Amino acid sequence: MMTFYFAPGTCSLASHIVLEEVGAAYRAVRIDTGKGEQYGSAYREINPKSRVPALSTDRGILTETPAILAFLAQAYPDAGLAPLDDPFAFAEIQAFNSYLCSTVHVAHAHGRRGSRWADDPAAVAAMKAKMPGNMAACFELIEATMVAGPWVMGARYSIADAYLYTIAGWLAGDGVDPARFDRIADHTRAMEKRPAVQAALAAVGSS
Amino acid sequence: MMTFYFAPGTCSLASHIVLEEVGAAYRAVRIDTGKGEQYGSAYREINPKSRVPALSTDRGILTETPAILAFLAQAYPDAGLAPLDDPFAFAEIQAFNSYLCSTVHVAHAHGRRGSRWADDPAAVAAMKAKMPGNMAACFELIEATMVAGPWVMGARYSIADAYLYTIAGWLAGDGVDPARFDRIADHTRAMEKRPAVQAALAAVGSS
Repeated sequence: MMTFYFAPGTCSLASHIVLEEVGAAYRAVRIDTGKGEQYGSAYREINPKSRVPALSTDRGILTETPAILAFLAQAYPDAGLAPLDDPFAFAEIQAFNSYLCSTVHVAHAHGRRGSRWADDPAAVAAMKAKMPGNMAACFELIEATMVAGPWVMGARYSIADAYLYTIAGWLAGDGVDPARFDRIADHTRAMEKRPAVQAALAAVGSS
Repeated sequence: MMTFYFAPGTCSLASHIVLEEVGAAYRAVRIDTGKGEQYGSAYREINPKSRVPALSTDRGILTETPAILAFLAQAYPDAGLAPLDDPFAFAEIQAFNSYLCSTVHVAHAHGRRGSRWADDPAAVAAMKAKMPGNMAACFELIEATMVAGPWVMGARYSIADAYLYTIAGWLAGDGVDPARFDRIADHTRAMEKRPAVQAALAAVGSS
């Protein structure tokens, strides 16, 4: 059985949803990031990067959301969560997920964890001030160019949807009205009807 | 024939190397980022994100380094640049590439493009000041935990090597002595012996 390390309010929700979508046998372990558990020696043996998510499998430990999502799609092909036999279509999903991790998640992080990139409190405050505009710009681009509808890749639901839903869920807390983005708001509503999403949210909420 | 959009000194070098490794038929087009060509309407039709690299194929355009690298490995399976039949091993490469794009490349960008995340010049200066320490910390972790040697994944050369080589090449310019990292210095030297790396560097240099 796999062990999944997660924390509420983080990008680990995307992998959590996909674990539910594929029907994986897994045990979920909450890491208390509020108490800094991710920096403790026990968790650093699991993930030296001190981040969630991490997925412990019988082959070893995987980290990084795009890698875990693609792994689950490939390891559970019957779930049909990625076009595994079409390198171009698979790459389109990867490009979307890579944009979310390297640009959108990073934009968001400047609102809460600016001290990663500057020590001066005034600089951290300046990053926080610019963050909502950056998040809005990212979602304007996603809305205009990246969501085929109803799902990210069009008619076919995929791992990209779990990731988009997770990060779109941060908009309100980041000071950006999610209702500005019609297609993304529709996407969020469609996601919330999926049993796997409800199961993952329930698991996080009861943790 | 594919068209590859690149700029010298950027992460596009990783995809450039892999295009050479797989023996792809492609035309390379330099985007003059110094003149802001990436923000012009012509390039924004290719990549609305205004970034390099982009790879135009007969199916459409791909962006984001991890996606292009995995696409080339899958589209040219005979080149053997990723373990395509092993989801876990493939995910390990993806996790490495995802760390490079979402953490290491991002750390580097704070030294040159801090204005993405804050408007105050003092904040931009504070980000620039912290950048070398962040890059050093990233490479300490890579050196200690992520490079099996001689290649990233061990005996088998992969797309991850082209990406590591590209980003390790930024260390000196970022104020971090690459010689601090024995395994990465060895890796850089091994990469520079590869004909595909030499061909990609020559193509960038003569562009």
